[in-house]
Amino acid sequence: MYPESIRCLIESFKCLPGIGEKTAERLAFSVLDMEEEQVELFSSSLMDVINNVHKCPICNSLTDSDICSICSDPTRDSKILCIVEDSKSVFLFEKLGMFHGKYHVIDGLISPLDGVNPEDIGLNKLLDRLNEEKFEEIVFALKPSIEGETTSLYIKKILEGMDIKVTRLASGLPIGADIEYVDSLTLERAINDRKIIE
Amino acid sequence: MYPESIRCLIESFKCLPGIGEKTAERLAFSVLDMEEEQVELFSSSLMDVINNVHKCPICNSLTDSDICSICSDPTRDSKILCIVEDSKSVFLFEKLGMFHGKYHVIDGLISPLDGVNPEDIGLNKLLDRLNEEKFEEIVFALKPSIEGETTSLYIKKILEGMDIKVTRLASGLPIGADIEYVDSLTLERAINDRKIIE
Repeated sequence: MYPESIRCLIESFKCLPGIGEKTAERLAFSVLDMEEEQVELFSSSLMDVINNVHKCPICNSLTDSDICSICSDPTRDSKILCIVEDSKSVFLFEKLGMFHGKYHVIDGLISPLDGVNPEDIGLNKLLDRLNEEKFEEIVFALKPSIEGETTSLYIKKILEGMDIKVTRLASGLPIGADIEYVDSLTLERAINDRKIIE
Repeated sequence: MYPESIRCLIESFKCLPGIGEKTAERLAFSVLDMEEEQVELFSSSLMDVINNVHKCPICNSLTDSDICSICSDPTRDSKILCIVEDSKSVFLFEKLGMFHGKYHVIDGLISPLDGVNPEDIGLNKLLDRLNEEKFEEIVFALKPSIEGETTSLYIKKILEGMDIKVTRLASGLPIGADIEYVDSLTLERAINDRKIIE
């Protein structure tokens, strides 16, 4: 019913998350209204991402350079390492601009129920790095979930005896939250981690 | 902050309608998780649409053949012509499969307030076609709005004396609608166009 080229483009849009038939049709038609140059740029940026983006050999984050811009930046604090679950977290932290140390991206979280064991998440690469570079502190910035906690505890255990300070992001009430809507685990953590008002 | 290739892809997604920064980021990351083949297909389908899709020289609808599949189909009823505003309407009607005549896509609707005058919507092409092909009936399937009505009336006036039956899609209550929520213009039309129950 649609010309083959349009049908093909609709199918491609439908492969994206959260995009159904109707939205895919709308997006495909909007491409027809775009400047030719813009569509060429879109098309080539898709190929660029596939061809150029790869994991940084040091920190495992996504980059299109040999070594990512953070690992190769000599002004970053090389004494503190932030462990995150994916590259998205790295970009998010960088957007905030609050953290000036280095990052390490692990490939997922330990989750025995889903069949993800410690050996599946690339911990060897992390341990090699910890032995090479001398970090004074490691911050876990993993998801505040059972999997996140398990992974942090597992890595912390390995690090015992290595004289590295191990921290995690604070948990507690989100700023502006209504206490009555905060879940009980968060509330429990907020009570346990309560801070002296100075 | 993002690698250049990813930044570029995010910008491209942001050019699509209804897609903001956050969604564009999510879509770009989902591309990173796709199979390489799938991304290649996406990229090439974008270029195909730009390179292959053009307006059918007869009916003005979008096609990737020399002449669109409807104009070149000898089994279609060549006595009835449906006038629509854009190619999307053609595809929508074809999806329903209820109409077996031919189509003609005009380039927009007459709207003096927006500076769109009769000469801007390609009526000459339509008139040439009406003189060449001998249609017995013309159905206006334009938006039921002031612009749609104006356009239909304008074309109808030109056709006077050409011995062509001129019809438009029925207006009235949408099936399943709550009468109390139907706007007054639609209700007025529904009353005026009431039908005998047979």
